[in-house]
Amino acid sequence: MDIAEFSNKILNRDRRALARAITLVESQRTDHRAQASELLSALAKHRRQALRIGLSGTPGVGKSTFIESFGLMLTAQGLRVAVLAVDPSSARSGGSILGDKTRMEHLSRDPNAFIRPSPSQTHLGGVARRTREAVALCEAADYDVVLIETVGVGQSETVVSEISDLFLLLLAPAGGDELQGVKRGIMEIADVILINKADGDLKSAATRTCADYSGALRLLRKRPQDPPGFPKAMMVSALEDQGLTQAWDELQQLNNWRSEQGHWDQRRAEQVQYWFQEELRQAVLSQLYTKKAQAEINRLAPQVAEGDLSSAKAAGLVLSRLNITTG
Amino acid sequence: MDIAEFSNKILNRDRRALARAITLVESQRTDHRAQASELLSALAKHRRQALRIGLSGTPGVGKSTFIESFGLMLTAQGLRVAVLAVDPSSARSGGSILGDKTRMEHLSRDPNAFIRPSPSQTHLGGVARRTREAVALCEAADYDVVLIETVGVGQSETVVSEISDLFLLLLAPAGGDELQGVKRGIMEIADVILINKADGDLKSAATRTCADYSGALRLLRKRPQDPPGFPKAMMVSALEDQGLTQAWDELQQLNNWRSEQGHWDQRRAEQVQYWFQEELRQAVLSQLYTKKAQAEINRLAPQVAEGDLSSAKAAGLVLSRLNITTG
Repeated sequence: MDIAEFSNKILNRDRRALARAITLVESQRTDHRAQASELLSALAKHRRQALRIGLSGTPGVGKSTFIESFGLMLTAQGLRVAVLAVDPSSARSGGSILGDKTRMEHLSRDPNAFIRPSPSQTHLGGVARRTREAVALCEAADYDVVLIETVGVGQSETVVSEISDLFLLLLAPAGGDELQGVKRGIMEIADVILINKADGDLKSAATRTCADYSGALRLLRKRPQDPPGFPKAMMVSALEDQGLTQAWDELQQLNNWRSEQGHWDQRRAEQVQYWFQEELRQAVLSQLYTKKAQAEINRLAPQVAEGDLSSAKAAGLVLSRLNITTG
Repeated sequence: MDIAEFSNKILNRDRRALARAITLVESQRTDHRAQASELLSALAKHRRQALRIGLSGTPGVGKSTFIESFGLMLTAQGLRVAVLAVDPSSARSGGSILGDKTRMEHLSRDPNAFIRPSPSQTHLGGVARRTREAVALCEAADYDVVLIETVGVGQSETVVSEISDLFLLLLAPAGGDELQGVKRGIMEIADVILINKADGDLKSAATRTCADYSGALRLLRKRPQDPPGFPKAMMVSALEDQGLTQAWDELQQLNNWRSEQGHWDQRRAEQVQYWFQEELRQAVLSQLYTKKAQAEINRLAPQVAEGDLSSAKAAGLVLSRLNITTG
């Protein structure tokens, strides 16, 4: 493989080369990993950056309709948009809305948009690395905005928020007792909450839901990287194209403020260090995922459960059987 | 040291023996660790269990007054109460309210109460193990309720919630823009939120704050271990001894429901497995905390930050220099 030629194609916005490159970073084969690493190094020199927007939402919120409308609004403004999905669960096949491009038929045909369905893989560390590398490839291919969709399984929001500059939470209008769909912990990472489907019969429910979440956001401790008024809740209708440009204005305003205050650079630098540390952590933790290690752990687990062996003692026994010398 | 005699004293509620045993589990000396391990094994056979209540609160909420009043209410009902503190920050000296027993002067003189100030130590893994062991010692010493106070630094709430059966969050009344003191993520673990200082001039502010948090709790996804109505927000006045028995009734009701539904046993079993896994994780991760490992990491960090070296590649280089073979 000619890495120089390959990287040039990506830099020149060749969509097929980009798709091939993402397939390459998704591969687990050793020779593919080596090529991917070389390619990413070559592209990194160009220091191209996009605005990375993480996106999560409750089921039935209309995420595909939102991405379609939001994406088309961005391309209409002359921006190039890439959409990626993070799905750490291998059990779900086609679980991600992006598995079905036909649900975003206009955006998927837009020459200024690139949509990449999510592959499935179990190991979360692998998902994180692959997603980061896919984002880097989209940045090299000169996209202005990269939307990173999470399907909200397990730790995927945390992974996505550690890759993104901004995090959008998409919610549906609901009333009274229905209001229990938000995954605990997600308020922690949301920069903007969008109440979708603020149209037709649901308009008043959306207004109420928006007020509820505005109230809940005010109860949280302020983050230094938030200007006054953020995080905030807003109403949109992806179906009727309402509120999308306002939402985009708010996101840009937040992003500009963070850039001016130095939070943006700081966050990117922290993310790089976070992922370096995370690669190291995942690598040393993989010592516990070997067949031998799992057999030792499973052998002692019942005694730990019964209280016959303390967890500290059991851990010591496992490590000595594995010849792991701890610091 | 005669472990049999030592453990008998603890089982017979000898407070000085209990205090000595906690000092033993806090020690990092190898011979002390071995003795502590033997002692805990001897005591574990007796399978004594207490209700473990984790407790966190914003600064100025009146936590010491609350623990004093709540503890005295419990001892007045004939219950034996132990109070422990978790402070993972070594920088703060006397930061924990328990550093100053005089602020709980009645409870500290109560023969049915045991108060243990927090030692300071940097390593969070160490704090977690020490706290779990101190809780086990208090259970062996026949305390009915163990209150585990966290000072709310770093990850301490997570540690405490993984040790506790119930988690109490203590908040002060506030109005409008002041309502920003709650650490993000804490709503995730709170079972009951108590708005303290619901007395005098603050009564109406407390009512409003209570309603705000009731609303915010309703927005979260329901947990299977919660009966209808939980998690809930309530008002108390530790100063005027108002609402404390009601709060205790609610906690017992929640606890009984969880016991009857099997959630209590399941949670304790999960916690044991969690801590076994966590001991293993901390142990293998300690390979990254050696002087040599840190030197290697620091050597490569600038190249990673500059984008000249990918985090995956850098991690691989560090591990090969440390001769760590990954799974």
